Parts: sequence; C-alpha cells; structure tokens
Amino acid sequence: MRITPRERLKIREGKEPKSDPDSLAVEEPLEIRLRNEAISVTMRTPGDDFELAAGFLFTEGILRTSQEIGSMRHCDESEDRNVVDVHPAEGVTIDTTKLQRNFYAPSSCGICGKAAIDQIRNEAPPFTSTLTVSTSLLATLPGKMREEQEAFEKTGGLHAAGIFDATGNLLVLREDVGRHNAVDKAIGYLLLQDKLPLDHQILMVSGRASFEILQKARMASLPLLCAVSAPSSLAVDFAVENGMTLIGFLRGEEMNIYSGKDRIATG
Amino acid sequence: MRITPRERLKIREGKEPKSDPDSLAVEEPLEIRLRNEAISVTMRTPGDDFELAAGFLFTEGILRTSQEIGSMRHCDESEDRNVVDVHPAEGVTIDTTKLQRNFYAPSSCGICGKAAIDQIRNEAPPFTSTLTVSTSLLATLPGKMREEQEAFEKTGGLHAAGIFDATGNLLVLREDVGRHNAVDKAIGYLLLQDKLPLDHQILMVSGRASFEILQKARMASLPLLCAVSAPSSLAVDFAVENGMTLIGFLRGEEMNIYSGKDRIATG
Repeated sequence: MRITPRERLKIREGKEPKSDPDSLAVEEPLEIRLRNEAISVTMRTPGDDFELAAGFLFTEGILRTSQEIGSMRHCDESEDRNVVDVHPAEGVTIDTTKLQRNFYAPSSCGICGKAAIDQIRNEAPPFTSTLTVSTSLLATLPGKMREEQEAFEKTGGLHAAGIFDATGNLLVLREDVGRHNAVDKAIGYLLLQDKLPLDHQILMVSGRASFEILQKARMASLPLLCAVSAPSSLAVDFAVENGMTLIGFLRGEEMNIYSGKDRIATG
Repeated sequence: MRITPRERLKIREGKEPKSDPDSLAVEEPLEIRLRNEAISVTMRTPGDDFELAAGFLFTEGILRTSQEIGSMRHCDESEDRNVVDVHPAEGVTIDTTKLQRNFYAPSSCGICGKAAIDQIRNEAPPFTSTLTVSTSLLATLPGKMREEQEAFEKTGGLHAAGIFDATGNLLVLREDVGRHNAVDKAIGYLLLQDKLPLDHQILMVSGRASFEILQKARMASLPLLCAVSAPSSLAVDFAVENGMTLIGFLRGEEMNIYSGKDRIATG
C-alpha cells in the first residue's frame, strides 16, 4: 500500500473551507534484521520489502551477491509486517563493523507507526499550547522565508527550515542538503539562546513533512508545522496523536490543514 | 560555505553545448561526538555546526536543555572542521541507549568528503563500463518514468528511482518516501534476479542527487546517473573520482552533465 487517505481541511481562495480526504504517501518504519539482530530501521513506504532489505544490505557492502542471501522473511509475530529478517547463506561471513545501529530498538516484532509515535511521546516534554494564528498570517510565511533564502535560488539543492513567532516574524532560517539538518540547526539556534520550549512558535519547511520532522518539532514543543509540499501518512498520524497542527501545500492563501485546525482562524 | 561552483556541460535546445561553472549546494559529512566518542555522522551543508550538533542532541532526546551542554568544539586536528565534539556539563548523565552508531567510523579527526569517497571506493567492486548513450535517448527517460508513477501524481509525496537499459527500456521503477529506499528497492529487485553488476544500465531519480545516491549506484556498478533536480557538491566529486557519469536537471532535451561526458553522445 503506497498511498492512503487522510482527512484534511482544504482552504482555497474565494471558497468555503471544505473537508475531504487527501491521498498521502504511506510512511512506516522497516526494521532490517540480520540473523535475528536489528541492524537498521528506515522510514519507508511499505511494499517490496525484500528488495529493499536486499538492496540495502548490498549497497552498504554487507552482502555482495544474491547467493549470499540464504533466506528473507517477515517477522511472524508482526502483524504489520514491518520487520524483515535476513539470514545469510551457510558459510557467509559478515563484516560486523559495517552494521548500523539505530534509535529504535523494539524488543519484540511489533515495530509499527504506532510504536514509533508512542516512543517519541514518552520522551517528549508535556505538550500544551494555546497558540492560534490566522490563515492570512500563514500566507505570508513562504514569501518571508524565500526572501532569506538566497542560496536556494542559486542552487535548487538546499532544504530550508524557518521558525517564526506568533506574529509572523522570522526568528531563524537555516538551509541544508538534509531537511532534518535544517530543522536541527534552526531548533539548535534557539536552544542555544535558551528560547525553548517553542510552544508559541511556528516551524516552516520548504519541502515535504515526514515523521522525522514532526518528531523534531514535537521535542521542541513546536505546536504548528507548515510545509510547502505534502506530508506523509505517518506525519499526519503523529500530529493528530500529539495534538499538533499540521499544514501542507502552503502556497499563498491556499493550504491543506491535516490536523489541529483549532489553532487556525480561517478567513 | 553553503554553495560552491562545479564545472558542467550545459546542453540546451538549439544551442552548442557549453561548459561553465554551476553553483551547487555543499554536502560534507559532520561527525558528532559526545565525550570524544562518535555517535552520529550526518551528511550536511557546512555552517552552524554547533547549532546542528545541539539541535540534533536535543531533538533526539539525548540532551534536554542548553544548560546540559558544557562545551562544544571542532576537533583540533581536523582542518576541514567536520567533527564537533560535545562535552556535557558536569553531573549530566547521558542515556546511552539512545546513541546512534553509523557506518563511518574514522579513527582520527580527518573525516571529510574525500575520506567518505575513499571508503566507498575501497569497498566497491572494480569499475569499468563502456556504456555510451545519446542525449536524445536520455531525453525520453523522464517521460517513461512518469508514465509508471501513478502514485506520484496522486500524492506529490513519493520519490522515484528507475533503472533503464542502454536502449532506454525501463527495467524497474520503485517509489518511496525515502529517496535512498527507492534506489535500494530498484537495485534490490535486480540483485534478486541476479542481474548485477549493472555496468550497462542507467539509474534515474526523480529528485536531487546526493552523495548517498551516488554511493549506492557505485556499489551496483551503475555508470550513469540522471537526476531531475540538482546534484550536491559531493555527488559531483564522487562521480568525478569514480569515473561515473552524472547528469542533473534532466528535462527533455535539456540537461547539465557534471561528470563523465565521454559516455554521452550529444546531438
């Protein structure tokens, strides 16, 4: 299943806000195991998981040929099939120095979007925010960000993350080849100035909104995330579960509100 | 330094191919250390490295306040300043279960783009390829990929990777919320069919070309990579060092050749 519907409130110029389902890319964690041991968790779109596991092990130099793969199977206990266990063929030696370890280390087979969401929620500080903003304020954010983004105009190769205050002032803008790095830099800047928690601030990213971006926003207590492009299914689920406001396809006065519309004053 | 020039051969309709420098986003590894121990390597755009390290440690739940940071410094031995060492304030305890380990584990301070390139080159199989293709064949690839990408049209949230043969037939197309996963799936599909090495095939990706994508292509012996959008500086450097052909901004008959133009017959 590569795409899945999620409700959104569609804001379009000159029209009444309308609620309807939007088709989003599915994002779910996949844990890749080698001889029953977790070596990597990647956020992926389900489907072709054996190919993904085989390709990952090959392109990371852990296995060298398809003959070195003895068997691959989904973890039996896992209903959501988000674990692939690879057993090398007999006699194959693995260079364990190449194995990657990751943050998620679930003890059973049950890794799923829900587990990933729960883990973050348990770690993050309590979350309440009374922030409300208008759609007309949100409409000004992309332009303000672009003005600051000289590098983006020149290369087309940098992601940007900006943090705004509740009146729409840009507090910090950071750019990076990695979307998550741009977000970490912007949050890190305010952290080092002792400005956290950011429970009355707005995070805006230049591209898509993935689970990872929502997770980082949640840790910084950011209640409202705007993306120029699409969110993933898990980003929406995370926002709903955590009481965060998630806006996608923010382009001028037009936007989709996927979660937390109580913080948005329309019109 | 966020952007840097790299030479390219500019192919534009009705014009002679022209060589000039293009401004690209800089991509370099940053190793984040905690108490002298490497805990993460991220491919990032240099600049604001202390903010990135602080933001990363905070959003991953490893440090909770700026007061918990005792000191941050670049590793003295590193001329390219790609290592940040963070020392927690006295009395701060770290939950070591949250620490991430990574593939790169350089023993000295000298992590840099060159080291990352060398490491892959040492691991990858010997690389020779006599593939040559015409710009008019390359011009047909984006359209062929789009035809297969029903999901992309619906969501705008999926990256795509396609592998073509030398006559432009699409052998496999995979989509994923993660660009690297789409590439792993496509390579994994052909690996499981015993079709590797792919030294006469072409990899095409829907978005940008980063170091990681070039690395995966190199492991599969793919000599030619086309991207719809921009490459990073390190992607170009990697392609040059490895004798790979790298094409960016492939849109119809127009494209930029950043490396390995011997494989491309123009006109």
